[in-house]
Amino acid sequence: MDFSLSPELLALRDKTRAFIAEQVIPLENDARQSRHGPDEALRRELVGRARAAGLLTPHASRELGGLGLTHVEKAVVFEEAGYSWLGPTALNIHAPDEGNIHLMEAVATPAQQARWLRPQVAGQLRSCFAMTEPAPGAGSDPAALATVAVRDGDDYLISGQKWFITGAEGADYAIIMARTEDGGATMFLSDMDQPGITLERSMDAMDACFTGGHGVLRFDKLRVPASAILGEVGKGFRYAQVRLAPARLTHCMRWLGQARRAQDVALAYARRRTAFGKPLSSHEGVGFMLADNDMDLHTARLHIWHTAWLLDQGEQGSYESSRAKVVCSEAEWRVVDRCVQILGGQGVTMETPVMRIFMDMRAFRIYDGPSEVHRFSMARKLVQAAEKDAQAERGVPATIQAVPAAPRPL
Amino acid sequence: MDFSLSPELLALRDKTRAFIAEQVIPLENDARQSRHGPDEALRRELVGRARAAGLLTPHASRELGGLGLTHVEKAVVFEEAGYSWLGPTALNIHAPDEGNIHLMEAVATPAQQARWLRPQVAGQLRSCFAMTEPAPGAGSDPAALATVAVRDGDDYLISGQKWFITGAEGADYAIIMARTEDGGATMFLSDMDQPGITLERSMDAMDACFTGGHGVLRFDKLRVPASAILGEVGKGFRYAQVRLAPARLTHCMRWLGQARRAQDVALAYARRRTAFGKPLSSHEGVGFMLADNDMDLHTARLHIWHTAWLLDQGEQGSYESSRAKVVCSEAEWRVVDRCVQILGGQGVTMETPVMRIFMDMRAFRIYDGPSEVHRFSMARKLVQAAEKDAQAERGVPATIQAVPAAPRPL
Amino acid sequence: MDFSLSPELLALRDKTRAFIAEQVIPLENDARQSRHGPDEALRRELVGRARAAGLLTPHASRELGGLGLTHVEKAVVFEEAGYSWLGPTALNIHAPDEGNIHLMEAVATPAQQARWLRPQVAGQLRSCFAMTEPAPGAGSDPAALATVAVRDGDDYLISGQKWFITGAEGADYAIIMARTEDGGATMFLSDMDQPGITLERSMDAMDACFTGGHGVLRFDKLRVPASAILGEVGKGFRYAQVRLAPARLTHCMRWLGQARRAQDVALAYARRRTAFGKPLSSHEGVGFMLADNDMDLHTARLHIWHTAWLLDQGEQGSYESSRAKVVCSEAEWRVVDRCVQILGGQGVTMETPVMRIFMDMRAFRIYDGPSEVHRFSMARKLVQAAEKDAQAERGVPATIQAVPAAPRPL
Amino acid sequence: MDFSLSPELLALRDKTRAFIAEQVIPLENDARQSRHGPDEALRRELVGRARAAGLLTPHASRELGGLGLTHVEKAVVFEEAGYSWLGPTALNIHAPDEGNIHLMEAVATPAQQARWLRPQVAGQLRSCFAMTEPAPGAGSDPAALATVAVRDGDDYLISGQKWFITGAEGADYAIIMARTEDGGATMFLSDMDQPGITLERSMDAMDACFTGGHGVLRFDKLRVPASAILGEVGKGFRYAQVRLAPARLTHCMRWLGQARRAQDVALAYARRRTAFGKPLSSHEGVGFMLADNDMDLHTARLHIWHTAWLLDQGEQGSYESSRAKVVCSEAEWRVVDRCVQILGGQGVTMETPVMRIFMDMRAFRIYDGPSEVHRFSMARKLVQAAEKDAQAERGVPATIQAVPAAPRPL
Repeated sequence: MDFSLSPELLALRDKTRAFIAEQVIPLENDARQSRHGPDEALRRELVGRARAAGLLTPHASRELGGLGLTHVEKAVVFEEAGYSWLGPTALNIHAPDEGNIHLMEAVATPAQQARWLRPQVAGQLRSCFAMTEPAPGAGSDPAALATVAVRDGDDYLISGQKWFITGAEGADYAIIMARTEDGGATMFLSDMDQPGITLERSMDAMDACFTGGHGVLRFDKLRVPASAILGEVGKGFRYAQVRLAPARLTHCMRWLGQARRAQDVALAYARRRTAFGKPLSSHEGVGFMLADNDMDLHTARLHIWHTAWLLDQGEQGSYESSRAKVVCSEAEWRVVDRCVQILGGQGVTMETPVMRIFMDMRAFRIYDGPSEVHRFSMARKLVQAAEKDAQAERGVPATIQAVPAAPRPL
Repeated sequence: MDFSLSPELLALRDKTRAFIAEQVIPLENDARQSRHGPDEALRRELVGRARAAGLLTPHASRELGGLGLTHVEKAVVFEEAGYSWLGPTALNIHAPDEGNIHLMEAVATPAQQARWLRPQVAGQLRSCFAMTEPAPGAGSDPAALATVAVRDGDDYLISGQKWFITGAEGADYAIIMARTEDGGATMFLSDMDQPGITLERSMDAMDACFTGGHGVLRFDKLRVPASAILGEVGKGFRYAQVRLAPARLTHCMRWLGQARRAQDVALAYARRRTAFGKPLSSHEGVGFMLADNDMDLHTARLHIWHTAWLLDQGEQGSYESSRAKVVCSEAEWRVVDRCVQILGGQGVTMETPVMRIFMDMRAFRIYDGPSEVHRFSMARKLVQAAEKDAQAERGVPATIQAVPAAPRPL
Repeated sequence: MDFSLSPELLALRDKTRAFIAEQVIPLENDARQSRHGPDEALRRELVGRARAAGLLTPHASRELGGLGLTHVEKAVVFEEAGYSWLGPTALNIHAPDEGNIHLMEAVATPAQQARWLRPQVAGQLRSCFAMTEPAPGAGSDPAALATVAVRDGDDYLISGQKWFITGAEGADYAIIMARTEDGGATMFLSDMDQPGITLERSMDAMDACFTGGHGVLRFDKLRVPASAILGEVGKGFRYAQVRLAPARLTHCMRWLGQARRAQDVALAYARRRTAFGKPLSSHEGVGFMLADNDMDLHTARLHIWHTAWLLDQGEQGSYESSRAKVVCSEAEWRVVDRCVQILGGQGVTMETPVMRIFMDMRAFRIYDGPSEVHRFSMARKLVQAAEKDAQAERGVPATIQAVPAAPRPL
Repeated sequence: MDFSLSPELLALRDKTRAFIAEQVIPLENDARQSRHGPDEALRRELVGRARAAGLLTPHASRELGGLGLTHVEKAVVFEEAGYSWLGPTALNIHAPDEGNIHLMEAVATPAQQARWLRPQVAGQLRSCFAMTEPAPGAGSDPAALATVAVRDGDDYLISGQKWFITGAEGADYAIIMARTEDGGATMFLSDMDQPGITLERSMDAMDACFTGGHGVLRFDKLRVPASAILGEVGKGFRYAQVRLAPARLTHCMRWLGQARRAQDVALAYARRRTAFGKPLSSHEGVGFMLADNDMDLHTARLHIWHTAWLLDQGEQGSYESSRAKVVCSEAEWRVVDRCVQILGGQGVTMETPVMRIFMDMRAFRIYDGPSEVHRFSMARKLVQAAEKDAQAERGVPATIQAVPAAPRPL
């Protein structure tokens, strides 16, 4: 067992930290932001700064122009990037592009990569991932997928409605999940400027950190050639899983950075603000919250590191990434909520960055599977594992079977 | 970063697991137990089994007859031993002997080691650690130490009262903390069968897993030669710290085993017990608790592993072991409380081992520093670290200082 | 709305309070107690004291020899009685006798009342309520009732097993729930000294406050005449409901007294114990717990009062008593757990009464329906009520229907 | 004890409920709202509707044109008004006007009332309460008041800075707290259109329900005649207390309405939304949240009712209103947070009113004293009360003193 980070990784961490402090945080007050995130001009400026610093799209392979980071390396770098809400945009590692790049690199054809992935890795275009649908379609339960793709000669005609499509406004291309005639789910690629794609509206969301906000899309017989199928027909859910486990984990990483930022702001405030004759930080009521925050931050970090390491070992990590998602989304939220409380009135106004983090983060306990769905899925797997153990251990002195029916030592 | 365990450690883990399942759990119903733990005969039988299995006193150095485990290795082995409440007694790694062996190995003279430590490592004698005092003496706040050691020729005469002295009844020797005339605290060694030592009573405690229970001791001019000083005069608190950080962590390890046992019992019950037409485990209300338990167990394990690794790197780990103690004592408690709830009526009776674990574990949130004392100490250190950072970063673009006074991006 | 208590009720409260302080608490250390509660001699002494004080069986009607208290009056008096763990035994208001008396008064025939109820109200005999069965019988889900009563001439022969039968050891008579040939559940009365009734064992429970502990009973063709049917054939579950709502609430009342006792002990300790240079109570970490305790105590009291008032209005109060049971069992538990923490080592030993209260109370979150069963039942009823509202409001501007699909005021 | 509401109060409740459903909720999407609340035109329209319905300023005395509601009556009516975020504005019972009206009615001279209070009760003008200051001035700790009022002939010249002044933008008059030369605090009345008053900026707050938002005010030698002193010189803090206890409680009432609204929306959604083959509400994970919400809502309501009743009895209710404030602000917040979670993606967007309620409510745990300040104050009072009890009971068998040193019944 070894918790040390290599000198190269430490250097990359420090470089990212300095970049965020010097190049990104000074832009946090930039006016080119709205409730739908930074605009394209600000995004390009941020991306340009990351490119100049050699930090752009670090999770893409070196062949594509990235840094080819492992999952553990991403854990360290993405936490640093997340320290500013503009950091993930700058490094081109924000949702959904981060996960889409990962998926495209794993599944897309060379032609598809040349057309969409390479410019995306270079920060020149943006994408969206069109899977979630309004009721009664595919929400928490993807099996209810209602968007259809009907064969028309060599093409497909896609029809349906999608919502909560992050980054939709202004995206250059979309990965679209639709049901094909064989009943399975298939992923399609399409430029966004096609007839047949309508951005019905942008949703007013609590968060404001994703470029392009969250859109409602309508597909009316959108024509897509067979060559724009991503991977194979009918394997859409399998690819969604490929995308999902790492994508969940990168959310945990970025939000850990935001939670650490909130703790730093609260700690600085508690040190210099005086109440009832002593610094806030000397009040146990505040000190306990600072300590709880540190426990939660470290818990989140350890779960991220452990799951990232498992993924690096080639494990699918589906159970562990579920667990990490629930642990991190809830622990990081507690941190930010406590920071709001420590900051008092300033916590619920834009006097400090913490209110912004609070509003940006709430949805994290919901997207990529709300905590409740993950808990139920975890329970099912725990029971299955216990049943398998129980069968394997039949006839031998197994731990559970060896539990005496009625121990009565006292 | 590497979370893998060496093949040797995995083998030792599996050997310990099998030993507990086959040699220890079958004795859990043994009648030679009382509210003050297993009696000496049962203890000797358990120790004998561990000796035969090559697992006795594994944390002592190989030179002394142990296995010389590192902290990380202890993390793995002690968790397994803790799976049964008799496991730590069998392996000779229960409090207070485990910590006393560690301290004696680090500080005692060869003569002291020959007399007390070597037979203790061999499982032939037991010890107690006489530090805590009734109010207004040394409780959570050790600075209030009231027991005194007065110089008398070459000897010292120790007088005072101690309570909550785990293992006192039947212990062979004691490590006694007393204030010497220079005002400092000094540790003394003494056989327990001396005139001047009275076991006033054994306290009725909720736990029943420590051999010898918890005693109230009175020292009336107990005569101790200068050669029985442990280490140097006046360094008692320093040694207590040496003992403390690892001792805290070994508590976390052993109780993790108990919490895992509770989860296994609850999981087995939830799989086979039916209510309202389906297995308990298929009820979300129960499944969520099982999932929360797994999150808490893994959180505890990760904090233990990380802190153990730090100690193996030579770090003092005072902050981290505080943090791990709070995280583990609270997470493991939540697990056991949920298991009681899942088991229903059987959780609050001796029909399963879980009630016993519940009663044994409650004190863990209190001893070695209640959560509140650790939280306050952690807060103080977080503030100090933040102040140091702030000074270091003066003049350069530091993260906290760069927080804009009033970011207003929306 | 009026929260005032009548002068008579205040006087009765103060009288009960003084009785507990002067006549009952001094007996808490009496040796005539075991893990199965006070023995019969101690019980008779306690009952005698309550009789002398005019406080015996106050919930029975005046006609039967009680004080004929309303539910609200019980709320006030039972809280006071619960201040000592011996108080409910003294006043003859402990489970299961308290609920059985209530049920017998409502349903039993004059002959049955003369034989069993009148001496019980006078404190001369004890009863048990034999409903719960081991798996796969009637546990949290009473529909699974497995004990049968087979007609045999004018008699019934009852066979089956029951467990967690509070007060079984030493009880004079039992109310037995069994399935009759029509498939329904019927309640039978039987003396306990009959052939056909075996007390297989007493269970080792965490609590030790119920006279007679918790027993496992076996019925082997227990012969019961038709005249010993309680109420009508097939109405067993209906009567169980009659007994249940008030019985739940009296648990809440008695345990509120115990929780208040724990808070008083913790408060007294926190005032006089010093740590780090000031009284414990001046540490925010402790003070916050004391404040939280007071909030939880008052929350429990308000729910009890409100539900008791509803029952006094003739409401069945099934939903509200479920809600009060969950709120109180969890709030009162938090209070006691915090008190343990405040008391430190003394909280986990018999140095104070709090450890005893902690161990006695844990089962309250489980019996009379674990929190999880109540929460699910409450949810079902909330949904049903909402559906009913929605139907009633069809066509008129109803609050929920008036929720705009997409309010967008900002 | 009596929890019933009079027929008149029930009629008023139903009337208010219908008014909100029919006259107010339809305006929730009205465009005349911004991050600083409804604008003056929308406010006047809302007030006009309430006037027409006979519901305007119901807490003012009948003599002044209100309905002269008692505190208990306010509890019922304000909860209904709070069901829409525009309701309190319509009824003229929103902070800070609600509390200012209360204070002005109790303290202002007839001339002051004629000039400011009467038109305010009629909904024709708005006010603000200028007390809170930026560090190191009067925040959670009002003793640090830094704004000064210097005597100048018959006038006073007020100088200082205030922030978090709710409703400042567009207010017609202000109540200003300033330190006079005798060292005490005094309240002054002033029109807002005076030279010497500058609205430096409006703060960007998370909430958007208060007309006029939250402003930063600067006073530069604002000239105020002695006739504009509110009450007596030096009694500013005493009047602030007069205003405080009821004002705290009316916050609890209004937010209870918002929390109930959130629960209704979540319940409606959970009934009709399907996931994994059944309605959301049939999932225990969701059902438990709905049940917890109902417990929290009822807990809040009971604390409000009880404290309101105490105030109606003439009690100052300082302790109880602190307790109610903490209980309600935390319980109501838990409700809204759970509703967000139940609603999933729709909970974090403006698709339903719940996100808006979530953002509006967070500050409630902070203003009028953050939970931490109230908890500490409550602890101090609990300790004082216990000390008083202990003294009073010296020599008589008191409950705490009667706690045996070492009960050992088992």
